[in-house]
Amino acid sequence: MENPQACGTSRIAGCRFSLYPMADNFVEVILTALKEVDTSKVWKQTDDVSTCIRGRISQIFDVTKAFFLHAAKTGKHVVMSGTYSIGCPGDSEGDVFLVENDERLNAETAAAIAQQAACQFALYPMGAGNYMDVIYGEVQKIKDQGVNVTSIHYATRLDGDAHAIFTGLENCFSNVEKSGVSHVVMTFTISANSPSAKKGDK
Amino acid sequence: MENPQACGTSRIAGCRFSLYPMADNFVEVILTALKEVDTSKVWKQTDDVSTCIRGRISQIFDVTKAFFLHAAKTGKHVVMSGTYSIGCPGDSEGDVFLVENDERLNAETAAAIAQQAACQFALYPMGAGNYMDVIYGEVQKIKDQGVNVTSIHYATRLDGDAHAIFTGLENCFSNVEKSGVSHVVMTFTISANSPSAKKGDK
Repeated sequence: MENPQACGTSRIAGCRFSLYPMADNFVEVILTALKEVDTSKVWKQTDDVSTCIRGRISQIFDVTKAFFLHAAKTGKHVVMSGTYSIGCPGDSEGDVFLVENDERLNAETAAAIAQQAACQFALYPMGAGNYMDVIYGEVQKIKDQGVNVTSIHYATRLDGDAHAIFTGLENCFSNVEKSGVSHVVMTFTISANSPSAKKGDK
Repeated sequence: MENPQACGTSRIAGCRFSLYPMADNFVEVILTALKEVDTSKVWKQTDDVSTCIRGRISQIFDVTKAFFLHAAKTGKHVVMSGTYSIGCPGDSEGDVFLVENDERLNAETAAAIAQQAACQFALYPMGAGNYMDVIYGEVQKIKDQGVNVTSIHYATRLDGDAHAIFTGLENCFSNVEKSGVSHVVMTFTISANSPSAKKGDK
């Protein structure tokens, strides 16, 4: 095979995301959380709109989950929103550290943070694949972990433990990719400490 | 034809979006902007994570642009992020006011707000269609309006006048749909008044 990076789970995954602390000291919240996250296993680039990370699926989810939790533990209303992507036909092979393994550098510090969250996500399988059964199966597993799952226009809503939510997102994403879909895109918006949580006009 | 709503530009378009004012008074910024936007031509539902609007393409873009501009004119760092969608196979026919016409209720008040912005967007044509030429053509038109266009991982970046940016987004979305793509999804994140604008670590 000419390009081993294009094969299976060693393909380059990535996430472009932003963290929004609804607070006057938003810069401090972002920078403090960023210092607490070990990003040494992903390629990372930040501009004034978002941050892009690239690497193994496991590392991409480890970093985004940890970043969200470290910001949320401030107690401020924080939202993280972004897009996970793998297999984009226009993607380049550079800007990545795929020599790394699946050991998650932030698992321990993130596990210590208990956080309820509300998440809205949508998965877009670009190209053929037997993905519907995979998605149904993964959503059932998310429910089995005590997360409340609701269908809404253009998205699926998850309410519950932030760790279970991120695990569910990662399993949906990686198992749809393993099912044979060449290009998988998943958008997500996850919110913590909202003053209008469970009081919204739903 | 059994379902005239499934035909051409009268199909139901929608947008699920959130507005993030990076300020302690974020609730006030959101509610004040919301009061200044006329949403009577779209179906609208807000929960604690996002707002969903549905209706004609013209009305969806009129409302999202106006909401962003009215929030941005406060001078606070505000970001709007969301997903425009049309033709989702799982979509229902309800929750929409498609009897409305294309006259834009917020065009005049929005036009009075001058605002520079930075936007990152990605367009996902789900299904076949001759869309690449359409996208290239629309991006060229955006450039012709003085907006700076940059390719970044997983997105295209637009820097310039917020009105030109929203016009470009709408034209990309609607012309790709007209080109014959049954299901079009477009994600966007647009930022105003960022303290790190043009000083970011890019």
